[in-house]
Amino acid sequence: MATSTQTPVRFGIIGCADIARKLCRAIDLAPNAVLSAVASRSLEKAASFARANNCSTEVKIYGSYEGVIEDPTIDAIYLPLPTSLHVKWALKVAQSKKHLLMEKPVAMNVQKFDEIAKACEENGVQFMDGTMWVHHPRNAKMREFLDDTELFGQLKRIHTYFSFASGDDFLKNDIRVKPDLDGLGSLGDTGWYCIRAILWAADYELPKTVTALPGPVLNEAGVILSCGASLHWEDGKVATLHCSFLESLTMDITATGTKGTLHVHDFVIPFQENEASFSTGAKCFFNDLVTGWTPLPSEHTVITDLPQEVRMVREFSCLVGDIKNGAKPESKWPIISRKTQIILDAVKTSIEKDLTPVTVEW
Amino acid sequence: MATSTQTPVRFGIIGCADIARKLCRAIDLAPNAVLSAVASRSLEKAASFARANNCSTEVKIYGSYEGVIEDPTIDAIYLPLPTSLHVKWALKVAQSKKHLLMEKPVAMNVQKFDEIAKACEENGVQFMDGTMWVHHPRNAKMREFLDDTELFGQLKRIHTYFSFASGDDFLKNDIRVKPDLDGLGSLGDTGWYCIRAILWAADYELPKTVTALPGPVLNEAGVILSCGASLHWEDGKVATLHCSFLESLTMDITATGTKGTLHVHDFVIPFQENEASFSTGAKCFFNDLVTGWTPLPSEHTVITDLPQEVRMVREFSCLVGDIKNGAKPESKWPIISRKTQIILDAVKTSIEKDLTPVTVEW
Repeated sequence: MATSTQTPVRFGIIGCADIARKLCRAIDLAPNAVLSAVASRSLEKAASFARANNCSTEVKIYGSYEGVIEDPTIDAIYLPLPTSLHVKWALKVAQSKKHLLMEKPVAMNVQKFDEIAKACEENGVQFMDGTMWVHHPRNAKMREFLDDTELFGQLKRIHTYFSFASGDDFLKNDIRVKPDLDGLGSLGDTGWYCIRAILWAADYELPKTVTALPGPVLNEAGVILSCGASLHWEDGKVATLHCSFLESLTMDITATGTKGTLHVHDFVIPFQENEASFSTGAKCFFNDLVTGWTPLPSEHTVITDLPQEVRMVREFSCLVGDIKNGAKPESKWPIISRKTQIILDAVKTSIEKDLTPVTVEW
Repeated sequence: MATSTQTPVRFGIIGCADIARKLCRAIDLAPNAVLSAVASRSLEKAASFARANNCSTEVKIYGSYEGVIEDPTIDAIYLPLPTSLHVKWALKVAQSKKHLLMEKPVAMNVQKFDEIAKACEENGVQFMDGTMWVHHPRNAKMREFLDDTELFGQLKRIHTYFSFASGDDFLKNDIRVKPDLDGLGSLGDTGWYCIRAILWAADYELPKTVTALPGPVLNEAGVILSCGASLHWEDGKVATLHCSFLESLTMDITATGTKGTLHVHDFVIPFQENEASFSTGAKCFFNDLVTGWTPLPSEHTVITDLPQEVRMVREFSCLVGDIKNGAKPESKWPIISRKTQIILDAVKTSIEKDLTPVTVEW
């Protein structure tokens, strides 16, 4: 986490998506951020969003995205628009020298993302995607375990799974099933998190090949509703992921090393806001008669004073503050967004090519 | 469970494998079974095994497998020999009209298993493989959840994983890494359980195709040390499995339905002998602001008076008792052994054929 003290970063929100309600609250709770403006394509919708979310009367209401982008008092934009609109608006944001916190998936493909990342770099603005769970303090604790050569050993295998049972209305009307909006479907939505979790566990080392698993489910418009993939690294590490809109809410990471195993069952959205748990087995084996385990795996709970999305806003705002004080943008964040998008693209390509393995290139 | 009252079934054990110690105790603890004889290729080894396991002085000691097979006072044989020896000795057991409780994997391939099953059927003896976990009362409780259309819905996905970190001595010397002994390696050992768990969750409906995953690890002799596979059913169900001798002790089933999710982390050998747990999520979803789950998943613990291997011996002995009273052998057990072996063969074939999908035929 960056650590500079600073005046609060002034945020504008573009678009009134459901997820924006959560970020509206997060910006309010973050000690170094303040919501300054809300923009929608209609003034009425923006005003209604501000009222519904108890925004201060000082928050400006814009009836166009351009309005907030051109507002010189705004430092940073939170952009939760549908994926297909990301490039257009992200470029305008960057070109107006505003820092960009953008919802995932970052783009329809890595070429599009590269346009965004280039614009941010050229304009000296911070880019971060809206993957909240990596900011939870639980994550640092899980990382400690994975890095522990004595208890966890060498990483060998990762399995991640994120599904939710979306229901008929969602499957008919949600932007995440529309090819011209969030056209990457469940791969772009829940799959994004699975891929990020795999890369996180692998210390962001890219696999060599990605192969989609048999049985992807696509809707009539060709949008992925459910799919799986297998990833394979040169050193023998393997991973599987499964993402879906068609199965009960499930949110797993299993990471296995030569000595230890990590399990977490709510990695994207912890069961409860103020605490989150994970379990570890370290050097477990069968007892002598193979009638039980010794030692037993153990459960670890991490309390957090601030919800993970608030910590994300705080981290982003710290970086923005540092830039105001002369620092350069932190390149780690666009790099891990890009890596995630590269794997996402590879899964999609493998599905399109009848499940043939796709070689991953940076 | 069969329910006849009976005189105890008299067991002979062929071979003094490590696992035989556990069964020796299980036969002792089962209310309807008694250990009558122990056989090894050397009289001294058999006697030493009997002493080490505190067998009663009434237990006969045989210095040859034939001795116990030909003993007319023995009702049933527990056969934990290496897989490659199963056919030879299982046929002799069946032909001498003795019931057969045999360790997994049941055979080197399904054709070999069919010889065993045919011999058992022709001689009217019960066959059961040594998969213990399905006899744990936890299993019946988990089954209830999977069958609950209101809480679990329709099964969509299964993931199973069983690995243990075997160590250098095992990887050099254990019979499970020797092509001429337990030549199916980790697929035959830990993979057997993963496959059985998938079939169990799917109500023993066979998948349409089986495809091995990238990255199988074989030793110099060509024995599988670690591999994965993807299974696909005609109705869209999918499953993945991973089995290994190279990763930390991990033992997972995740089964996901349209409404519910089941997790268990010690499905083969429960953490503790007298109780076992699993967790279920039913109709879970995000709360309004997507900052938590509602309702939360719940944990269920099942107490057992008898360890799972004792319940296996009891069930097997009940069936033998029923046969003594005129019933026919229970065909369910050889059928699920055969299904498990068919999938095991398909994974092996897919690995041998460069990960091409293998069509499953009964």
